[in-house]
Amino acid sequence: MRTAAVVGTGLIGTSVALALTAQGVTVYLRDTDVTAVRTAAALGGGLAETPPGPVDLAVLAVPPARIGATLRQCQQADLAHSYTDVGSVKEQPLRDIEELGCDVARYIGGHPLAGRERSGPLAARADLFDGRPWVLTPSKETDTETLNRALEMVALCRAVPVVMEPRAHDHAVALVSHAPHLVSALMAARLEGAADTATRLAGQGVRDVTRIAGSDPGLWIEILGANATAVADVLAGLADDLGETIAALRALAAEDEAKRSGGVDGVTGILRRGNAGHARIPGKHGAPAARYEAVPVVVGDQPGELARLFADVGASAVNIEDITIDHSPGRPAGLIELMVDPAAAEGLVHDLRRKGWNVQR
Amino acid sequence: MRTAAVVGTGLIGTSVALALTAQGVTVYLRDTDVTAVRTAAALGGGLAETPPGPVDLAVLAVPPARIGATLRQCQQADLAHSYTDVGSVKEQPLRDIEELGCDVARYIGGHPLAGRERSGPLAARADLFDGRPWVLTPSKETDTETLNRALEMVALCRAVPVVMEPRAHDHAVALVSHAPHLVSALMAARLEGAADTATRLAGQGVRDVTRIAGSDPGLWIEILGANATAVADVLAGLADDLGETIAALRALAAEDEAKRSGGVDGVTGILRRGNAGHARIPGKHGAPAARYEAVPVVVGDQPGELARLFADVGASAVNIEDITIDHSPGRPAGLIELMVDPAAAEGLVHDLRRKGWNVQR
Repeated sequence: MRTAAVVGTGLIGTSVALALTAQGVTVYLRDTDVTAVRTAAALGGGLAETPPGPVDLAVLAVPPARIGATLRQCQQADLAHSYTDVGSVKEQPLRDIEELGCDVARYIGGHPLAGRERSGPLAARADLFDGRPWVLTPSKETDTETLNRALEMVALCRAVPVVMEPRAHDHAVALVSHAPHLVSALMAARLEGAADTATRLAGQGVRDVTRIAGSDPGLWIEILGANATAVADVLAGLADDLGETIAALRALAAEDEAKRSGGVDGVTGILRRGNAGHARIPGKHGAPAARYEAVPVVVGDQPGELARLFADVGASAVNIEDITIDHSPGRPAGLIELMVDPAAAEGLVHDLRRKGWNVQR
Repeated sequence: MRTAAVVGTGLIGTSVALALTAQGVTVYLRDTDVTAVRTAAALGGGLAETPPGPVDLAVLAVPPARIGATLRQCQQADLAHSYTDVGSVKEQPLRDIEELGCDVARYIGGHPLAGRERSGPLAARADLFDGRPWVLTPSKETDTETLNRALEMVALCRAVPVVMEPRAHDHAVALVSHAPHLVSALMAARLEGAADTATRLAGQGVRDVTRIAGSDPGLWIEILGANATAVADVLAGLADDLGETIAALRALAAEDEAKRSGGVDGVTGILRRGNAGHARIPGKHGAPAARYEAVPVVVGDQPGELARLFADVGASAVNIEDITIDHSPGRPAGLIELMVDPAAAEGLVHDLRRKGWNVQR
């Protein structure tokens, strides 16, 4: 790939432009917002110009609802040999493209699983896609050349390509992203009218479950709107389980022993299925979640304590894969869990204890 | 308080014993499991003996279902002047106590909001309750002397007393602990039969929502069983919202513009209520959640990187209140967010950049 165009220079488009430019590709930038194009070019994302002839690949980084119309317009102007997009849903844009009579053979859907809490070209980073999954959704009509150009772009962005059907993609993100978001909001909504004495008792569990409920509703209504049926289907399955769980809880509170026993089975059943589903989520770098071992260390709440801890950890030359900090309300001392390779855990515990750390293991 | 008894030397009982002993109280230990008592005594929790006369306060650290019977037995043996417990529910034990004809005036319910993932006396820590809320639930009959002994015990354990009605307590923990646990399990259960390509797309959001779904079902069925009605009531409210959310999502997918617009309102509504509920959860040390500012830093995945970062942070003398590590599958570089006092953020960013760190702000 020698030339590319990026249509839409927001966070994702500009990040693609930066990554491709860094790999020696000549990138042409386009956006209806002139300031956004100038910013992307100033950041080093490429040229704010119309290419002299068709580029190898055009990346349409516009909202899902505008992908079809944008593709038609670009194909009419003969902007590129092949086209892809970066939309977070894949079925509806493909339907739009077919209905608008675009050249479907030279289009392949795409969705990089990467993002930031901030948006716009100023938040862009060339390394945004490093090691992230980048879904590609070829249709039956997509030609091999277009598939290969998209695969090359994914490789140049250092992402990991995952080929899926558009429908399977939309169901997958409904399951692992869109439905969890609404579930978090539904739980958080219960706290809206809670007494202060009740919310004061909140620990790490409810904090984790409701963390993403703090996100921007404006952004999420767009995402959910483009994938509403798939999300509704996931939540309908959850609603059935929820109804059974409530009935099991009511049975648990019954006087009748047989009823109570049925309630125990029902509630235990959903807890066990929760265990099984939780175990399906892969850990860091795609490894199983159970790969790391926790080394819990008690630290004081003074400046420099963490620096001292990590300096001592660093002296052990052990790689810390993840960290959790237990910060329940009013707790002056914190419990830090260092997640490490199980083979390295024992040596680390020994080293830290020798240096005076309170390791709870 | 000069003397106390701890009945039940598991994690919580032994931790109370260690905390009281450390403050100069003479503690007598009792458990049906002889090994557990010996372990608690060996750890320095007190004496594995019957006290020579009634102690000032006996702490019943037994499961909720056994609090009533244990209190009757202890009062018949005249073990203490006053009694409290540490059970995670408060209404049912009080009913049991009244039905068994115990001396209710000399009993006060208690619930320290503290725990660990491990159980048993070996996991006990004198500082387990440091700064944590400790709910006390006096009944109308509880005498002042008993209330004051319990308040003294809470203070000696360095916890923060919160006085509540038994019923309000059970509703509060249903809302901020028990219901979120089942909601997490219900979402995780959806992933049980998911395709590997789908779970591979899992990011930090679904990981947080389902984290506590990985907990032990055996422990949770006991907790939920003792508070089943209150939990069912919270989930019934959530089920109503869920039904409306599913209907709104189906409307969002409709062709009809008026229907679609109603769907937008419905989904936006639950997202906004999620925002409002999320904002009700107090931050660390009981402060509002928005008190800290995030300083995001890109770090490599090599040993020693975190040590180097925290050494540099330590040199800035800035207190790190919390940390999140972005560890999406396959990402070799990590984004670390350091949560700091907003007043300290700018200086920290400056210092870290000067030392060559890639601060994304």
